[in-house]
Amino acid sequence: MYTFQNDYSEGCHPAVLEALVRTNLEHTSGYGVDPYCEEARGMIKEAFGCPEADVHFLVGGTQTNQTAIAAFLRPWEAAVCTSLGHIAVHETGAVEATGHKVITCPSEGGILTPEMVRAAVAAHPDEHMVKPKLAYISDSTEVGTIYRREQLYALRETCDELGLYLYLDGARLGSALASDENDIRPSDLPACCDVFYVGGTKNGAMFGEALVIMNEKLKPDFRYGIKQRGGMLAKGRLLGVQFGALFKGGLEDSVWMEIGRHENGLARKLQDGIVKAGYPLLVRSPSNQVFPIFPDGLVEKLAEGFKFEVQKKFPDGKTCIRLVTSWATEEEAVDAFLKAI
Amino acid sequence: MYTFQNDYSEGCHPAVLEALVRTNLEHTSGYGVDPYCEEARGMIKEAFGCPEADVHFLVGGTQTNQTAIAAFLRPWEAAVCTSLGHIAVHETGAVEATGHKVITCPSEGGILTPEMVRAAVAAHPDEHMVKPKLAYISDSTEVGTIYRREQLYALRETCDELGLYLYLDGARLGSALASDENDIRPSDLPACCDVFYVGGTKNGAMFGEALVIMNEKLKPDFRYGIKQRGGMLAKGRLLGVQFGALFKGGLEDSVWMEIGRHENGLARKLQDGIVKAGYPLLVRSPSNQVFPIFPDGLVEKLAEGFKFEVQKKFPDGKTCIRLVTSWATEEEAVDAFLKAI
Amino acid sequence: MYTFQNDYSEGCHPAVLEALVRTNLEHTSGYGVDPYCEEARGMIKEAFGCPEADVHFLVGGTQTNQTAIAAFLRPWEAAVCTSLGHIAVHETGAVEATGHKVITCPSEGGILTPEMVRAAVAAHPDEHMVKPKLAYISDSTEVGTIYRREQLYALRETCDELGLYLYLDGARLGSALASDENDIRPSDLPACCDVFYVGGTKNGAMFGEALVIMNEKLKPDFRYGIKQRGGMLAKGRLLGVQFGALFKGGLEDSVWMEIGRHENGLARKLQDGIVKAGYPLLVRSPSNQVFPIFPDGLVEKLAEGFKFEVQKKFPDGKTCIRLVTSWATEEEAVDAFLKAI
Amino acid sequence: MYTFQNDYSEGCHPAVLEALVRTNLEHTSGYGVDPYCEEARGMIKEAFGCPEADVHFLVGGTQTNQTAIAAFLRPWEAAVCTSLGHIAVHETGAVEATGHKVITCPSEGGILTPEMVRAAVAAHPDEHMVKPKLAYISDSTEVGTIYRREQLYALRETCDELGLYLYLDGARLGSALASDENDIRPSDLPACCDVFYVGGTKNGAMFGEALVIMNEKLKPDFRYGIKQRGGMLAKGRLLGVQFGALFKGGLEDSVWMEIGRHENGLARKLQDGIVKAGYPLLVRSPSNQVFPIFPDGLVEKLAEGFKFEVQKKFPDGKTCIRLVTSWATEEEAVDAFLKAI
Repeated sequence: MYTFQNDYSEGCHPAVLEALVRTNLEHTSGYGVDPYCEEARGMIKEAFGCPEADVHFLVGGTQTNQTAIAAFLRPWEAAVCTSLGHIAVHETGAVEATGHKVITCPSEGGILTPEMVRAAVAAHPDEHMVKPKLAYISDSTEVGTIYRREQLYALRETCDELGLYLYLDGARLGSALASDENDIRPSDLPACCDVFYVGGTKNGAMFGEALVIMNEKLKPDFRYGIKQRGGMLAKGRLLGVQFGALFKGGLEDSVWMEIGRHENGLARKLQDGIVKAGYPLLVRSPSNQVFPIFPDGLVEKLAEGFKFEVQKKFPDGKTCIRLVTSWATEEEAVDAFLKAI
Repeated sequence: MYTFQNDYSEGCHPAVLEALVRTNLEHTSGYGVDPYCEEARGMIKEAFGCPEADVHFLVGGTQTNQTAIAAFLRPWEAAVCTSLGHIAVHETGAVEATGHKVITCPSEGGILTPEMVRAAVAAHPDEHMVKPKLAYISDSTEVGTIYRREQLYALRETCDELGLYLYLDGARLGSALASDENDIRPSDLPACCDVFYVGGTKNGAMFGEALVIMNEKLKPDFRYGIKQRGGMLAKGRLLGVQFGALFKGGLEDSVWMEIGRHENGLARKLQDGIVKAGYPLLVRSPSNQVFPIFPDGLVEKLAEGFKFEVQKKFPDGKTCIRLVTSWATEEEAVDAFLKAI
Repeated sequence: MYTFQNDYSEGCHPAVLEALVRTNLEHTSGYGVDPYCEEARGMIKEAFGCPEADVHFLVGGTQTNQTAIAAFLRPWEAAVCTSLGHIAVHETGAVEATGHKVITCPSEGGILTPEMVRAAVAAHPDEHMVKPKLAYISDSTEVGTIYRREQLYALRETCDELGLYLYLDGARLGSALASDENDIRPSDLPACCDVFYVGGTKNGAMFGEALVIMNEKLKPDFRYGIKQRGGMLAKGRLLGVQFGALFKGGLEDSVWMEIGRHENGLARKLQDGIVKAGYPLLVRSPSNQVFPIFPDGLVEKLAEGFKFEVQKKFPDGKTCIRLVTSWATEEEAVDAFLKAI
Repeated sequence: MYTFQNDYSEGCHPAVLEALVRTNLEHTSGYGVDPYCEEARGMIKEAFGCPEADVHFLVGGTQTNQTAIAAFLRPWEAAVCTSLGHIAVHETGAVEATGHKVITCPSEGGILTPEMVRAAVAAHPDEHMVKPKLAYISDSTEVGTIYRREQLYALRETCDELGLYLYLDGARLGSALASDENDIRPSDLPACCDVFYVGGTKNGAMFGEALVIMNEKLKPDFRYGIKQRGGMLAKGRLLGVQFGALFKGGLEDSVWMEIGRHENGLARKLQDGIVKAGYPLLVRSPSNQVFPIFPDGLVEKLAEGFKFEVQKKFPDGKTCIRLVTSWATEEEAVDAFLKAI
């Protein structure tokens, strides 16, 4: 049985594990104020060229999104995202649980556009409605697409004009930045985003996300928010150790980027093979998630040898499935899959 | 430099680490529905003699308390605890953040009594006030004391009479149950509590708490609550692997109990030595936290060689400090400390 | 200047005012436990044929929706409504502010259908998403349409099948029940709804809504919820006095129904005249809100002599406006409007 | 049967009623943006000498406290008040329902002191605890005492030093300012408080409180908060009409102050008579609430002819009751009471 179910089916990348084992018996202070976290913060600030950033480590993606959005918004302010937005669909109302509406803009490809943001703001003109205040984007998106550099800058401009924060969910940022088609430079993220997070869980860590806050107004007291939402890990240094292992040696040579390249390469091979075999895609993806559409019968057959998620069922006897590659995916699995279709 | 700062200054117990390393490359489903979690759930149910329980794994203590209390209470219902209660003091208002008041009852020793619960209920007689609905206790308590079996059953009776849930925070339950003075049997916990949690973070795990729900009414849909509060770990099997390592072989012979005995033994040696040296205690503790009161000058001197937290400063030039032992504490540290006073 | 701006531009119906003046100097207990509230509760239970109901008086509609939905749902449960739903659009995220997502189903006419509810439930299959638990409908709807009896029973059946509560916002229930086209009997509301509210603010009262809870499970402790959300009026008897004046003499002969008939009659005259004059409608309305589509120039001209809200601007130089009639609207205003177009 | 139960047992002061009747048939815009509200805002700004204030009208006290505190605080920030504080005791956790902890300081007399604020801040030093950010006081307090001018300025100074907002709940501000012992000038309130509210419900209005925001930082978007918490009255002009009636003619000659003087005069007569008759007081009150301690037997006898609340039962067969006077209290009732003891 091969798995393309997701990019968090295994423990962690060997380099991360090695670091955890190596440091296991050391004593450090708790809650993320230890030397490992400090060092990892430095690496991330250097990787993205933002020495003035505040970097916080949290355990998982939903927690990070919830904690950040709840900390940044006043009670009646809302987040705006596409209809595929992870916060809108797959976080069990975590943002609403902190009191904030999530406004969604219909989208097939998962890319939030300035027009969408503009329309959402225009549709909420007064105090009888919530006030859109934060644009939420993911890179790569929930369907594997990635932002172009000019799209990111255009969003920044729109957010500036309308007074919104721009928040980037980087759960799969490693795969996005390592994509052949990516033209976003690491330093574009702090330049464009008020806040972004650098994903660990889906990119080689056991767990962990690094939230990078650029906007000075959003920095004060953020640690209170982490603690209040249950996200302050007692053995916080575990996060620092892991991010240290992932970012050691500079971004280009880091394990974190290497993982992105590895998983993208296998995903591209998968996608190309599927297309070549004549099957359509829900959306063409340049990152580590692939969305082929197969006849139901083939999907059933594939399920005997491969693990994957069903993305969408069509009424015409076809099904879109999601195939995800990870640092742990081996080429053998890809070859077996292509052989099976 | 020796550390008595807390019981979460290191990574994890070697047995836990070994299990994580051993299973690292395996593929499993995410979110806690994997075979490792299933197995660990079985071990915990067996250890506490409650096959009908629902067991959920969460990452940390604040998260567990917040998620559980928010899931169990209606909006106007409140938790009752002592004035030392962790949820009242040290969780940055995590419970209030979900909308619920925490009612506190003055206490020096950290033990919640039926009289306190009764008084809290009597003081909240109608709909102009919150409605006390959940009694929160910790064993061991925030100052290292532990509940007697009869105290636990008396609380149960009071909660039954007044219609409250009894919730036990077991962040340091291992130390409590392993205490020489403990007379609570593992099966008393499911018998007395609607819900309790079995602490991992402070008892040898990298992270993780196991919440055990006994009350049928509180079981449905709890996983929604975990996800909504950001507590559902993507690589959920990490929790199962760790608890499996901690509880393997039956409770008495488990690593989890062994850790409790180890840390209690060293704490007792510390406490006895301190008393013998003529220093008073804030409270006598039978578990892994010790609270000696030293002259300020001595505290300053000790701080040069040992790490610890200050618990309370007295106006008369004395200071109460907290010394905590863990699985990683070595006897050498205790001896050094006793020599230094 | 005539006004069709809304149905809450004046104080209150003379019968309500008379009752407030007559009882002004009497002493009663506060918070809604006085004889006037008791009597009005009885009238409402009789009017709708539901002696077993719990009836609570609240001040306004947003408050009623928020208080009720927050009291009924567990944290991760969500409300389902049409994309026009008042709770989704015009209450500044009041429901989200209590932690609950509002799921919307695209709709032009404002009628929630079993298919919509079914689709919303199907789209939220597991704990990674919120759990749809309450279907919210308004009668009359936000665009003046009304439910047919069979639509209401069909929704009830669907809610039973899927385990949802059915909640009816009756802000304009008087207008709905008094409509020529209505075939819902008063007793159908308690038969079909778990909860519904009988609107006062938009039907002759100074302020006030009467929430009717039928589902036994939703009854306990509701007054805690009212107080906690700031909705428990100190001088609660003001609500009882008003609803008493509105419902005196039995539903058919009540001032409340008379108001509905009055405003519907004038609205029909308006709508018929507009159609006869050749203008289209956004939607044909059998109740007290009318939505004609006029050329922008005409809208501008009308605005000089009449107050109304703009509902929607079309790109082709046309604008849909909303005209609302109330107990205070005089036929003269309608005649003047028809003359002006 | 005479009533001293509270100051909201009747409808409203005749001057308020007259204004409501007089304006009943006029058409105005809803939601508090009408000329009556505008005029009343002006009167209040003039009465308190704060032309730069933002004034908002809300329906009741709990609603006002909840809406304001939720709007002003970030999620982990807390309010500080005495142990008698209305928000801590008698609002069913309305503040906690918006996510904020209420920290209480033990007090018999209801006056919050700089020392209490200082101690609360000192006890919450880091991000593992909530952050005290708003000092909540009531004038008159929950037990009828009033602040001295120097106490108010001292609190202001402490709040400035520690970075807290000062919020004054003026539910019974009319009685406080009209007290013989008051030395606070109206203009001291905007000078000292970031925010205060001018109570209507307990001082002659049917309902309504006027929130006065001085701190520029707290002004933006407050109307969103009102709407979101269900406090934006559709027929908002009812609030303007009432406050207009209460404040017409300048503060000194206003109905609002006249009511304060009337109720204080009768309360003083009551209190003096009770003391003269040899009964102790829980606390000496210079405003419209009196707290005598009577033998249980006498309390029982009094209950046959008078309505009042029980404040506290003592173990020695004595009971403290609360007697409240209002604009509607007649001297005859006071005389009858004094005769009865």
